Amino acid sequence: MASVSASARSPQVQDENSTCHDVASFKAADTVVQLCETRKPKPESENLSFGTVFTDHMLLIKWSSGGGWEKPQIQPFGNLSLHPACSALHYAVQLFEGMKAYRGRDDRVRLFRPMLNMERMLKSAHRACLPSFDGAELMECIRKLVEVDQDWVPHSDSASLYIRPTFLGTESSLGVKKPSSALLFVILSPVGSYFSTGNKAVSLWADSKYIRAWQGGTGDCKMGGNYGASIFAQYEAVVLGCQQVLWLYGDDHQITEVGTMNLFLYWINEDGEEELATPPLDGIILPGITRQSILELTRQWGEFKVSERYLTMAALRLALQQKRVKEMFGSGTACVVSRVGRVLYQGENLQIPCADEEHSLVSRLLKELTDIQYGRTESDWTILV
Amino acid sequence: MASVSASARSPQVQDENSTCHDVASFKAADTVVQLCETRKPKPESENLSFGTVFTDHMLLIKWSSGGGWEKPQIQPFGNLSLHPACSALHYAVQLFEGMKAYRGRDDRVRLFRPMLNMERMLKSAHRACLPSFDGAELMECIRKLVEVDQDWVPHSDSASLYIRPTFLGTESSLGVKKPSSALLFVILSPVGSYFSTGNKAVSLWADSKYIRAWQGGTGDCKMGGNYGASIFAQYEAVVLGCQQVLWLYGDDHQITEVGTMNLFLYWINEDGEEELATPPLDGIILPGITRQSILELTRQWGEFKVSERYLTMAALRLALQQKRVKEMFGSGTACVVSRVGRVLYQGENLQIPCADEEHSLVSRLLKELTDIQYGRTESDWTILV
Repeated sequence: MASVSASARSPQVQDENSTCHDVASFKAADTVVQLCETRKPKPESENLSFGTVFTDHMLLIKWSSGGGWEKPQIQPFGNLSLHPACSALHYAVQLFEGMKAYRGRDDRVRLFRPMLNMERMLKSAHRACLPSFDGAELMECIRKLVEVDQDWVPHSDSASLYIRPTFLGTESSLGVKKPSSALLFVILSPVGSYFSTGNKAVSLWADSKYIRAWQGGTGDCKMGGNYGASIFAQYEAVVLGCQQVLWLYGDDHQITEVGTMNLFLYWINEDGEEELATPPLDGIILPGITRQSILELTRQWGEFKVSERYLTMAALRLALQQKRVKEMFGSGTACVVSRVGRVLYQGENLQIPCADEEHSLVSRLLKELTDIQYGRTESDWTILV
Repeated sequence: MASVSASARSPQVQDENSTCHDVASFKAADTVVQLCETRKPKPESENLSFGTVFTDHMLLIKWSSGGGWEKPQIQPFGNLSLHPACSALHYAVQLFEGMKAYRGRDDRVRLFRPMLNMERMLKSAHRACLPSFDGAELMECIRKLVEVDQDWVPHSDSASLYIRPTFLGTESSLGVKKPSSALLFVILSPVGSYFSTGNKAVSLWADSKYIRAWQGGTGDCKMGGNYGASIFAQYEAVVLGCQQVLWLYGDDHQITEVGTMNLFLYWINEDGEEELATPPLDGIILPGITRQSILELTRQWGEFKVSERYLTMAALRLALQQKRVKEMFGSGTACVVSRVGRVLYQGENLQIPCADEEHSLVSRLLKELTDIQYGRTESDWTILV
């Protein structure tokens, strides 16, 4: 099985089945399973609000600098007991991942490219000064957890079981330092569509007043601080009649991400080429797994130019004036893809074209990706639970 | 008593005794006190490692969007029970404050400018989308808590009781949004000197590889994410033989902060003037209460120019070459002041002069500030517990 170590910091692992490193790690084979006595009722798959309902069990793995990793524990879902000086609560020594388990019409449950999540989690752990582990071992622990709660994976083509690995520093003293103890845990939540608007186009507020991430910061890691700091801007976007923030960067108002998603522009570029473009992984962009999958899929198609490149608001505005924009959309695990309909920028509402549902790139990507995720298309991107 | 609301976002409140706003808030008078049955043994004041020992009690105040603020609770110190989806753990919806209680030779216990902490805490809460409250009410709750645990305030001129107010989003769902529930708590820790080196000069690593804060971010608020993200750089500084990071900003390598402290340069400036300079509160600098107190004290003295101004590494290096630097030091609640002895920058060790102990500005400031804090000098900057 594949393994990655925190020292391998490249966000894009091409070979998802590389050989093992020798990392001091917990072992999935040591997992202690304690099942709960009564199971909770399962919710309806429809109208599931994102991340509000949790399954019967959770995975917990403790680490300390003195004792190393303890045995993984699958146990009944319940509150965490944390020391009030816990460094995750004071200094945001914390990170998370987001992935999903999908039930196919064949009733089999699949994970989508889970080793990419493990790789990214180890990269975040390195940046957060949290200990390393064998990514393949965590993946196997997660597989076991999903297996235990497999009845919670919705019988639905649009719903899934969201998997939330979380990793906390649990140092119980107030010095700002590398934690000497940590807690890795995984919770599961059956989810429907991320946005309450469903597949409708989202509206964005683009302003340089708030900046999501910075060169030399942590924008390329899935650390909690990146998200909490964004809520204030998100709230201001809503006040201004938009649903999400289009995060800009630099004096030239580079387009970076949207809300908690990566961003794609499908257009005729400045040189007259048909191009699918997304900002490059230059340190301020989260290396999204859906982002990577869209780049790989469309490069396989070979139908248009696929670029990781800088995009600015000026270039977008000019392209809109010249009717060169075909589609714009966000991508992420929670939503897969989410089309953008409008951008509020410098007091002006920029209307983004949407191809008709049937012939749009976003619909085609949604179909191809979900066909893989739900097992309708054979792919080595999925792993059976 | 003074009160501040989150909408008053100016970091520098000159009038610490302004009149009340009408903020929906808990009331200190409603505090429910539950004392623990047995008291823990108190540690020796000497050799107290920062923030590792906690007192017998803690303060907890819960809030929810439906029910508002609950009654403050003073109860035995113990672990927090948190839902594993708690937004403080996933999205760093969290902030904290740092303040101290000092025991004078008159055996009375004082707080130092506590309303400035309340003001800053409300500003952080606003940025973190956490609810507002009446700062004077929280100050009174903290006063009560310190009173309950007053035996823990060290009988020492160098030790004190560190007070750590913390404020968490406790939303128990995974959407990135304004929390609908929150927990404010305060813990107390008897502390000695912050740095294990005591009053020795600290060495700094200055590099633009990691950036602490940026315009449009949260660097001017005491939010957890600012701190956790700094540990990696701090660790690299230690590997390079330095104790702390000198945080730079921008292409011109502006000097911003040092470790978790504000920074002061005492020098003969480019115009030949004797000047005490610290970076201005332009959005990336934490508005430190010790920083503000040093500015106010030295402006009162009227002995040299006191400036909030930009400082660059080039200006520092040139001034060192021309022997115009008198002293450089950090300031913060934990350490009060901490002199800088050396800066490693672009492979070069810049030696920072230190005036002899007796005649240095840093010693004079340490004496004047601690004279106020420990009640040896009468001042309206302190409040009796």
